[in-house]
Amino acid sequence: MQSSGEESHSGCAYGRPVHTHDAELTEVGPGKPCGEFLRRYWHPVGLSRLVTTRPQNVRILCEDLILFRDGKGRAGLLTPRCAHRGASLYYGKVDDEGIRCCYHGWRFDVQGRCNDQPCEPDKGAAHRDKVRQPWYPVEERYGLVFAYMGPPARKPVLPRWDVLEELDEGETVLAHLTSYGAGTQDDLSEIAPWNWLQDWENIMDPHHVAVLHTSFSGAQFAPEMGIMPDVHWEYTDLGMRFIAYRNLPDGKVMERYSPCLFPNVRSVPDVYMQTGRTKRMRWCVPVDDTHHRHFNAMRVPADFNGHDGLRGRTVGDRIWADMTEAEHQEFPHDWEAQIGQGPISLHSEEHLASADKGVVMLRRLMRQQIRIVQQGGDPIGVTFDPDKALNRVGAGNYLQGTYQETKR
Amino acid sequence: MQSSGEESHSGCAYGRPVHTHDAELTEVGPGKPCGEFLRRYWHPVGLSRLVTTRPQNVRILCEDLILFRDGKGRAGLLTPRCAHRGASLYYGKVDDEGIRCCYHGWRFDVQGRCNDQPCEPDKGAAHRDKVRQPWYPVEERYGLVFAYMGPPARKPVLPRWDVLEELDEGETVLAHLTSYGAGTQDDLSEIAPWNWLQDWENIMDPHHVAVLHTSFSGAQFAPEMGIMPDVHWEYTDLGMRFIAYRNLPDGKVMERYSPCLFPNVRSVPDVYMQTGRTKRMRWCVPVDDTHHRHFNAMRVPADFNGHDGLRGRTVGDRIWADMTEAEHQEFPHDWEAQIGQGPISLHSEEHLASADKGVVMLRRLMRQQIRIVQQGGDPIGVTFDPDKALNRVGAGNYLQGTYQETKR
Amino acid sequence: MQSSGEESHSGCAYGRPVHTHDAELTEVGPGKPCGEFLRRYWHPVGLSRLVTTRPQNVRILCEDLILFRDGKGRAGLLTPRCAHRGASLYYGKVDDEGIRCCYHGWRFDVQGRCNDQPCEPDKGAAHRDKVRQPWYPVEERYGLVFAYMGPPARKPVLPRWDVLEELDEGETVLAHLTSYGAGTQDDLSEIAPWNWLQDWENIMDPHHVAVLHTSFSGAQFAPEMGIMPDVHWEYTDLGMRFIAYRNLPDGKVMERYSPCLFPNVRSVPDVYMQTGRTKRMRWCVPVDDTHHRHFNAMRVPADFNGHDGLRGRTVGDRIWADMTEAEHQEFPHDWEAQIGQGPISLHSEEHLASADKGVVMLRRLMRQQIRIVQQGGDPIGVTFDPDKALNRVGAGNYLQGTYQETKR
Repeated sequence: MQSSGEESHSGCAYGRPVHTHDAELTEVGPGKPCGEFLRRYWHPVGLSRLVTTRPQNVRILCEDLILFRDGKGRAGLLTPRCAHRGASLYYGKVDDEGIRCCYHGWRFDVQGRCNDQPCEPDKGAAHRDKVRQPWYPVEERYGLVFAYMGPPARKPVLPRWDVLEELDEGETVLAHLTSYGAGTQDDLSEIAPWNWLQDWENIMDPHHVAVLHTSFSGAQFAPEMGIMPDVHWEYTDLGMRFIAYRNLPDGKVMERYSPCLFPNVRSVPDVYMQTGRTKRMRWCVPVDDTHHRHFNAMRVPADFNGHDGLRGRTVGDRIWADMTEAEHQEFPHDWEAQIGQGPISLHSEEHLASADKGVVMLRRLMRQQIRIVQQGGDPIGVTFDPDKALNRVGAGNYLQGTYQETKR
Repeated sequence: MQSSGEESHSGCAYGRPVHTHDAELTEVGPGKPCGEFLRRYWHPVGLSRLVTTRPQNVRILCEDLILFRDGKGRAGLLTPRCAHRGASLYYGKVDDEGIRCCYHGWRFDVQGRCNDQPCEPDKGAAHRDKVRQPWYPVEERYGLVFAYMGPPARKPVLPRWDVLEELDEGETVLAHLTSYGAGTQDDLSEIAPWNWLQDWENIMDPHHVAVLHTSFSGAQFAPEMGIMPDVHWEYTDLGMRFIAYRNLPDGKVMERYSPCLFPNVRSVPDVYMQTGRTKRMRWCVPVDDTHHRHFNAMRVPADFNGHDGLRGRTVGDRIWADMTEAEHQEFPHDWEAQIGQGPISLHSEEHLASADKGVVMLRRLMRQQIRIVQQGGDPIGVTFDPDKALNRVGAGNYLQGTYQETKR
Repeated sequence: MQSSGEESHSGCAYGRPVHTHDAELTEVGPGKPCGEFLRRYWHPVGLSRLVTTRPQNVRILCEDLILFRDGKGRAGLLTPRCAHRGASLYYGKVDDEGIRCCYHGWRFDVQGRCNDQPCEPDKGAAHRDKVRQPWYPVEERYGLVFAYMGPPARKPVLPRWDVLEELDEGETVLAHLTSYGAGTQDDLSEIAPWNWLQDWENIMDPHHVAVLHTSFSGAQFAPEMGIMPDVHWEYTDLGMRFIAYRNLPDGKVMERYSPCLFPNVRSVPDVYMQTGRTKRMRWCVPVDDTHHRHFNAMRVPADFNGHDGLRGRTVGDRIWADMTEAEHQEFPHDWEAQIGQGPISLHSEEHLASADKGVVMLRRLMRQQIRIVQQGGDPIGVTFDPDKALNRVGAGNYLQGTYQETKR
């Protein structure tokens, strides 16, 4: 045997190790470290205007649930399998007093109490209080239905966000489901088939804008977003944020304040470089370990009529879902960069560099907070005092020297 | 930390246990308790008129098999992988003497004997009797091909059913594959994607008729079927049955006799309340742990020409498969009630009540019979004496006082 | 209990054992015995003319890889997940110096060296040599891109084959992807969904031609191919071969020389019985344990314009993929015979006979060579001496007495 030269084959793929994902930060099911951490916060699970007496299936944090609104207007979130004999409440009928299973007609109110059993003597009066359909508390705000899926004794107040509370003259708040635009034309609840962390950590990574969104695919945002920024990252009392400094062609400096509001809320400053505070909030909600979806709320003029513009990204006049495979390769966007990492990225094979400092800090804070929850504590940003419910987002584009900090 | 009130969150879904199915009653593969119990009976595996020299794949009790009829008219049921080198007999050619594998031409008769090996010296005469394609015995009756898939020494006689033996003037027996109607328009062998027990135990549950089939979806059967019945359940020498008593608007009492004939045969009385003995038998045959299918035989007038009416349930003039998702939610039927329980229902989370007495009794008898088989005995309803092959079904609608019991 | 006769039920399918595949000969992933054996050879992974600056996904030997050609014409084969943070290089952009990840712009050359990191200070000059994208060496010949995926120190020379080197006047070599024809009309890289061994061992099995390709489906090749041959199998210094002798109607004897060139190369003599040496070579490349694909190279006239004729088998004027299910059953071909064996055949239930001698010998040699590799040796047919790269194929149809052996 005569080698053709081992030296010249360094780095060859043969014999490379098998790599794995970081389970502590990515797996969201009940009992999982990250799953229990996330369950200490309220999460949007539906758009208020789409929650009706017609039951809908939702999957959140690896749990399948039924979302509906009873005849008196109360939203309900129950487990789908009827406590009686397991038929799905998806086929149930909703009235003023709750949702009724199609099989034997047991009816449950929005807190899972069984208040009718039509096939039982006296409608089940003697025993039906022994039955409780598992349920989660919900509250509505900003046009979204929020659920709390954690331990009841640790239920925080549903936070308020100044961005959506302090409206300008003639503004209102609109909730919507805009996302990557990679769903079908009619699918308003696009579910992205990869782990939520890939999207969440992307927010603390402003450098990719100059590559992915500019030099690669043409300027997908304002041309000035393609200027490689100087970036400062820092922890805040709600999570962390970056400030990206860009030297504009006119000699001015644009400061871009962009926060990660734990555990999964962002408020990205306008990507067309409009100055001032942000208008938009986005929640990145894990569906399960390998899927996530987005919920949004934003200030709009009261006469806003641009729902179509909220459907997601486009190439020409087509949404992302309608691009050819070649176009996906030619004009990659967040969808391609993130789905390319796989259902759950393999963190053990990464090589992080200086531009990844924000990602490193984000993961460090997440791990710390996950462990706080494991040790019985309450994680960053939750409060149980209704007087402290208002959160200051502090996001926006500002010319140097014009930003005013507002602390929570 | 300040709790928002644990008291008000009782029954909350957080921390609920993980639930499981009852494996003893649901899993049907070889060696499984329920699988061995079911294997002590004959099961329909095909419609005689559709079993031809063109081989067809069938899956029954978790076993993949090839069903065909040889050129002399004998039905055969063999394992699909050729004993030679594993090519599928689905691509085989059938002649008077058996089925021949496409790869090297080995031919097997309906009992698996290898009677030709064209690539071997002298057609394999010296060795081919060492090869046996695994096979199951079949018999035909009522237009159905029945198979016995259990231990040879325990093979019972193929039962006869009085409902299909004692014909009225001008009647004949028709076999068909009518089922939920949720298959495609052309699929005559609809396979329902859930465990057979969900369908089987539904038969001992007459109360659901007043809800699912009446108040929920409008009267899918006779309006009188919506009257909540008084129900009496009892064990019989072939399994069990219920008698449902309904007080009709005219002051009369309708008695509805409906049996479960073990292990998987029913004879549901006419759902349009026509009086008299039943005309129909239905077998619920497990395909595997998460699928089942139906075979039917019924008395019809000799000039019956209503095959289209046997395709299954309809909404308006469309079959179940063509309904919209919203219509499935609005007009649920057995299909929705049963598929909603999942591939295999999670029995550990059920809350059974008084109307479920029939289900409780059915499961108790099944468990008892399963254990009898495990202990070496023969289960209920089997006989090895051809003179005792006739079973009395005893099903029908009768005005009070008109029912005549006929024992087996 | 009274048995209906155990005697008459011998060979019944009840209680038959669960069967398994031969893992040593079939599983091809890294570290698996057969996988390591195969990794000691070069394998085609792409068609040179289709390898461009647009990256393509390929899956070979259970490994997902990215194949591309840089702006200077060099083919590259890299792992798909960017060494930085895992985005797929499938969405990368290729230039003269390599492929650049879409997410942060890291660029890798065809040997995985990182030569740009645009978001890092000084383009990552200080640290980027610490990063290496895992890669495999490739070479191009006969219009194919070959990769070596084994241990670098054992990399053999890429073999030459006389069939493709010694051209007749006016001939050229054409590479193509013709296969079973069961892919879609536009799919030029048909991936067959079963283990490669089912196809590979089929080559040492000339008897099936007289059944599958003749008596079963009508003469799919020359009618004379239906004559049951006398077959002699023997080992060679490149693997093994058979010589099939057929007594032609005119009294002559046709000798058919057909080799297995280890580990996965064949050169089947003309199936229309044209005499002379073969024109075609085919590589059967495992995609993973349950899929394989074909690469071909053949001598053609320089003005050859028959690419359409290379698309695969046809029935009438339709390709295999467009046949009805009934036609697949009526006219089975290699596709049906092989896919019928399942994703991986169950070797423990086979009954091999005298016509399977070639299959037995092939498996024996494979097992021997697999174990040689496990014990640190080099397997049959590899050479590290460029002067010994030329392999003599020795395949063709010859009238008795006209064959001239040419040893390697």
